[in-house]
Amino acid sequence: MSKIVLLRHGESIWNKENLFTGWYDVDLSDQGKVEAKRAGELLKAEGFTFDVAFTSVLKRAIRTLGMALDELDLLWIPIEKSWKLNERHYGALQGLNKAQTAAKYGDEQVLVWRRSYDTPPPPLEESDPRYPGSDPRYAGLTKAEIPTTECLKDTVARVLPYWNDTIAPAIKSGKKVVIAAHGNSLRALVKYLDGISDDDIVGLNIPTGIPLVYELDAHLKPIKNYYLGDQAEIAAKAAAVAAQGKAK
Amino acid sequence: MSKIVLLRHGESIWNKENLFTGWYDVDLSDQGKVEAKRAGELLKAEGFTFDVAFTSVLKRAIRTLGMALDELDLLWIPIEKSWKLNERHYGALQGLNKAQTAAKYGDEQVLVWRRSYDTPPPPLEESDPRYPGSDPRYAGLTKAEIPTTECLKDTVARVLPYWNDTIAPAIKSGKKVVIAAHGNSLRALVKYLDGISDDDIVGLNIPTGIPLVYELDAHLKPIKNYYLGDQAEIAAKAAAVAAQGKAK
Repeated sequence: MSKIVLLRHGESIWNKENLFTGWYDVDLSDQGKVEAKRAGELLKAEGFTFDVAFTSVLKRAIRTLGMALDELDLLWIPIEKSWKLNERHYGALQGLNKAQTAAKYGDEQVLVWRRSYDTPPPPLEESDPRYPGSDPRYAGLTKAEIPTTECLKDTVARVLPYWNDTIAPAIKSGKKVVIAAHGNSLRALVKYLDGISDDDIVGLNIPTGIPLVYELDAHLKPIKNYYLGDQAEIAAKAAAVAAQGKAK
Repeated sequence: MSKIVLLRHGESIWNKENLFTGWYDVDLSDQGKVEAKRAGELLKAEGFTFDVAFTSVLKRAIRTLGMALDELDLLWIPIEKSWKLNERHYGALQGLNKAQTAAKYGDEQVLVWRRSYDTPPPPLEESDPRYPGSDPRYAGLTKAEIPTTECLKDTVARVLPYWNDTIAPAIKSGKKVVIAAHGNSLRALVKYLDGISDDDIVGLNIPTGIPLVYELDAHLKPIKNYYLGDQAEIAAKAAAVAAQGKAK
């Protein structure tokens, strides 16, 4: 039996301001830093330790991981960073206010862009300063790999190969793994691990900064999963995430 | 021409308390954190950027690197951590006060242990809680690799293979490299790069938290090297390091 931990980054400045973030490299808010530290404290209190960590190339996830590992006195473990664990790319909505976008396009359209499995938001033009191809951290990607927008299905299509090729072999080799990533890259992973349907994944929300533990069998099939910490608080945080896209 | 940066970690709590540190995983002091941030600011002001970073498995170097990269907005670059870049192992002196040790053994003996090229301090017993073999971060080392004490010559003998096998190929492939490490692992490297004799390396001191730039030719031979920042301050800091082992 293997035990892995998924950790969504703490609240970011843009979560707080209710902007669509996607691949924009926004930092944690002060509250997000508190959450990251607390995640580490929870893991420590429960006796967790790790041999290797995986994260995205976005600082809100990297910093959350670093602060949690610091609490665990595990700054020395290897950390693999990959764009494949990045948040879903939000296309032309990146940087826009969620409530304003909802007021303009309607709650329903925004909910479709936020939560439908296979409808991506409007794409970025390559001439847009937000196009990832002009950022040095994506210099190693082929043009076909660089997204201009993504639906969750697109995110799944890049997260799963990374899971299969990189993370799963580490777990199978006996390593204790933590994955610090984003709402949608973690939903992609949870969808796969738990065999959640395209329809049902729409209703699944992962709260920020709460360690989500998966116990896996030898074939990496989930035996059970659970959040660490106060269960009422976790439910309230997941509900808050679900409400973010509403106009009011 | 390649340009690499060597960065000794900022002041640690034990530097401040004048204890022999070696492989003990002590954290940065508040002053050390200021130095780390400032190193990042200096590098940023001079237009430096990096593709990959190398550091030890000790948190004072890892944190210095992280804080400097944060200033450079480069938290996303790959960081390779290796015990081969650790500080010199100080054997049975680890945790002892430098001034007290000097009072007991004499300034001269302590200076020999601190600065002679090939005389190691007294070794640790394997039953000593300070023996690295009981620390999970060194679980992958062979018994022969785990030091019980080191002279600078021993440190050179592990730093150089890491330079040759891992860092030099990265530089030759065109990557911009920063190495955040320790007084003696960096002295080992500088000795090799500049062809400094066993006798002359004794007098070379590297100040904490000051980026040391090496410009290298295609064969990685130094063309020139220089510290970034205020030159008088740098000289004062190097002198302070040299004075640490004195009884008064």
